[in-house]
Amino acid sequence: MKKAFVALLVLLVGLVGLSQAKYVFMFIGDGMSLTQIKSAELYLSEVNNRDVNLLMTQFEGNGITTTHSLDSAITDSAAAGTALATGNKTLSGVINMDETKTKKYKTVAEVAKENGMKVGIISSVSIDHATPASYYAHQPSRNNYYEIGRELVESNFDFFGGGAVKSPDGEKGNFYDYAKENGYKVILTQDEFENYDPNGEKVIIFNEELTGAKAMAYEMDRKNTFSLADITKKGIEALDNENGFFMMVEGGKIDWAGHANDAAANIKDTIAFDNAIKQAYNFYLSHPDETLIIITGDHETGGMTVGFAGTGYSTYLGRIANQKMSFESFDSILSDYKARNASFEEVQKIITENFGITFLSSDEKASLKALADNGSKDAYDKLAMSVNDLEYKKLEQAYNMSWQEKVPNTEYSYLLYGGYEPLTVTITHILNQKAGISWTSYSHTGVPVATFAQGVHSDLFNGFYDNTDIAKKLFEIIG
Amino acid sequence: MKKAFVALLVLLVGLVGLSQAKYVFMFIGDGMSLTQIKSAELYLSEVNNRDVNLLMTQFEGNGITTTHSLDSAITDSAAAGTALATGNKTLSGVINMDETKTKKYKTVAEVAKENGMKVGIISSVSIDHATPASYYAHQPSRNNYYEIGRELVESNFDFFGGGAVKSPDGEKGNFYDYAKENGYKVILTQDEFENYDPNGEKVIIFNEELTGAKAMAYEMDRKNTFSLADITKKGIEALDNENGFFMMVEGGKIDWAGHANDAAANIKDTIAFDNAIKQAYNFYLSHPDETLIIITGDHETGGMTVGFAGTGYSTYLGRIANQKMSFESFDSILSDYKARNASFEEVQKIITENFGITFLSSDEKASLKALADNGSKDAYDKLAMSVNDLEYKKLEQAYNMSWQEKVPNTEYSYLLYGGYEPLTVTITHILNQKAGISWTSYSHTGVPVATFAQGVHSDLFNGFYDNTDIAKKLFEIIG
Repeated sequence: MKKAFVALLVLLVGLVGLSQAKYVFMFIGDGMSLTQIKSAELYLSEVNNRDVNLLMTQFEGNGITTTHSLDSAITDSAAAGTALATGNKTLSGVINMDETKTKKYKTVAEVAKENGMKVGIISSVSIDHATPASYYAHQPSRNNYYEIGRELVESNFDFFGGGAVKSPDGEKGNFYDYAKENGYKVILTQDEFENYDPNGEKVIIFNEELTGAKAMAYEMDRKNTFSLADITKKGIEALDNENGFFMMVEGGKIDWAGHANDAAANIKDTIAFDNAIKQAYNFYLSHPDETLIIITGDHETGGMTVGFAGTGYSTYLGRIANQKMSFESFDSILSDYKARNASFEEVQKIITENFGITFLSSDEKASLKALADNGSKDAYDKLAMSVNDLEYKKLEQAYNMSWQEKVPNTEYSYLLYGGYEPLTVTITHILNQKAGISWTSYSHTGVPVATFAQGVHSDLFNGFYDNTDIAKKLFEIIG
Repeated sequence: MKKAFVALLVLLVGLVGLSQAKYVFMFIGDGMSLTQIKSAELYLSEVNNRDVNLLMTQFEGNGITTTHSLDSAITDSAAAGTALATGNKTLSGVINMDETKTKKYKTVAEVAKENGMKVGIISSVSIDHATPASYYAHQPSRNNYYEIGRELVESNFDFFGGGAVKSPDGEKGNFYDYAKENGYKVILTQDEFENYDPNGEKVIIFNEELTGAKAMAYEMDRKNTFSLADITKKGIEALDNENGFFMMVEGGKIDWAGHANDAAANIKDTIAFDNAIKQAYNFYLSHPDETLIIITGDHETGGMTVGFAGTGYSTYLGRIANQKMSFESFDSILSDYKARNASFEEVQKIITENFGITFLSSDEKASLKALADNGSKDAYDKLAMSVNDLEYKKLEQAYNMSWQEKVPNTEYSYLLYGGYEPLTVTITHILNQKAGISWTSYSHTGVPVATFAQGVHSDLFNGFYDNTDIAKKLFEIIG
């Protein structure tokens, strides 16, 4: 009986075709797979002392997505972006072109624009970075930043927001001039952002608080400028119109924190990403029958796991809260200490201050241990946050390495430090391990990612499928 | 228009209730999450030189499943088994009882039996191990092996197969006597297994080739006894009847290989598990409207990732094929070498023989490098399989550790060796890393797992849900 009705339904849907979604959101957590999501949930649950789930894991549609590029089981963001935006596999490093780097692929955002929808592209890293660029550019190399900036303007898309462009100047002139010539309003300060009331004009909004590589600050370092959620909210206001819109929002710094093996920065940017999703979800609640929200990762970064040999079956994600700033901000502090050749003892103080990792004497440890053995949880936690002999040795070795003129470029030092500031990455490794989080790589991995969907046609995103299938489904949905 | 029909359909299904699945298969890959699955696919693809997918990833239903126990983000197999079999969270270590260890929970297998279905329980590890026991036993501790054996017999289930029982003898008498008294045919040799023609009687079939802890051999070590697929096939023959059946099949040694950080053993047992699923799939093909196959993991083990700092964005899963036997079998070989205090040079020969890891002179390396730089892939691969200075140092250190009377029980040695034979685990670490696989733990992790489903009601297993939900859905389906 049930089967007959399913058959009837399938037949009727087939006859009428897929109904179109008017408002489509594509959220990409760069470097975000199951562990990044689960770590953020465990962290939030532990610091709030109750079960907390991210919004994304509560969405109705859910699938698992493979991410390999044409030439590697481990993709880069350009090949992954091309797959997600156009449905085509290409070589790592290539944006929306085939493997011969001659044929260009059209993106879902371009098709949406052709169909009369407004289009917005948002990223917490630079807006010409591989993932956002994959929605509007076509380049043989993701490093062609100047050309990507030109394509951004030529896309005629309605809204760009987040980090800035890396190479504004080139032989054809300045990016900002070109944008203005082509009718874009350009907003570069927090003041302007706050006072900007979308009126239908095309707009480019870059965050005032730019850090390395023209990206927005890590969420845990962000001061008084807009968050990813804030710019997403503004984008929705700007794009909302009767012909609908397509919006791509990238949580790009989840990936960067993963490369650096910094779990605190990773988790807090994952939460910031989920908060941006909440903005789309609020919009969905007012337009439930016309809105589709998709969330995926372009690949996993860092080989992150909720588990570490030293902590066995236990996790203490709350310990991550001891970290006060990202590895990047700590690096800047450290550079002053290096400049004046500060001693390891002096540096230990700022390690304790900013990461909660303590350096106790054996007497102090012994008395804490006695209390812990008597059931004091506070003493247990304090003891756990102090460095043991092995950790001390690692920190000392890393301090010596950091304090050298130049870190030697050996395989050994790469395995230990991945090209990052030796002392800082050693500190985050130790804090992460004390929390029960560990890493296997400073690069991406080949672990599949999770995809979530809410709204019209969210059921199409159930199942186990390739990242190219996401674009194929989207092409069908936006028509 | 579409919405009206969906509403009509939902209404009608609600009125008639869920149709029952007559034949239900529950496959549990112990310690199997996305990386274990993906690694097996990458390995098969590389050694066959074409894209190979496991059967499970091609199933129609697919979800992501959280695995935490009542007391930890990282579950053990007893709490996970309880969740999967009864829909209840409990403490790690407890089988089908509540956290006070007084109240017993009924399992889906017990309900199936009550409903007149036949029931079969199969595992590649001992049949009284936590996962299989979770379908028929109720114990405050998973270590109550003798009591679990008694409950096995008292369950009156129709088919038990795979590894044997760990504690056959106790105060109430011998397990095998008790089984026979209660009408079980007991098969303990390969000959008997091959000649056994199911005739409706209750049967217990243990593999003749038992290794440590009464488990079946790792698939890569298995000689002439039945595989997990063979025993699954026999089980289907034994259970097939007009009232239907419920069958649970555990790939238990995926987990054990994960604990030991042995990717080759892990991958080959994952493939063996997929081959067992093929037996169920063949049955499904003859009964597509009455069969449901579910596959899940009870947790991830080892913090395994497809990626390693030293290999960056590249993977070479084919290199895993160099390993000729499991860590466990190599340990036995090594014990002879230890007994006669063999030199490190002598041991290097069996490392090369059994893992393909070579010890080349700097001259040999230099000439291979010259050839590799000239484009020789063969020279590149040969060079890659030779140990570098750091790897040599690690192996030598592990050799010295293994050759000691007793490995010191320090946190440092645990981090390096996890309680395993230092030299063997160092060898698998190095081979795995050369393949692009790495590990973060010798325990389970809190990373969610993948669930797959095929057949009647497979759509119920789409989504992001907890392991307890699998049992809840199953209770609904078997009525």
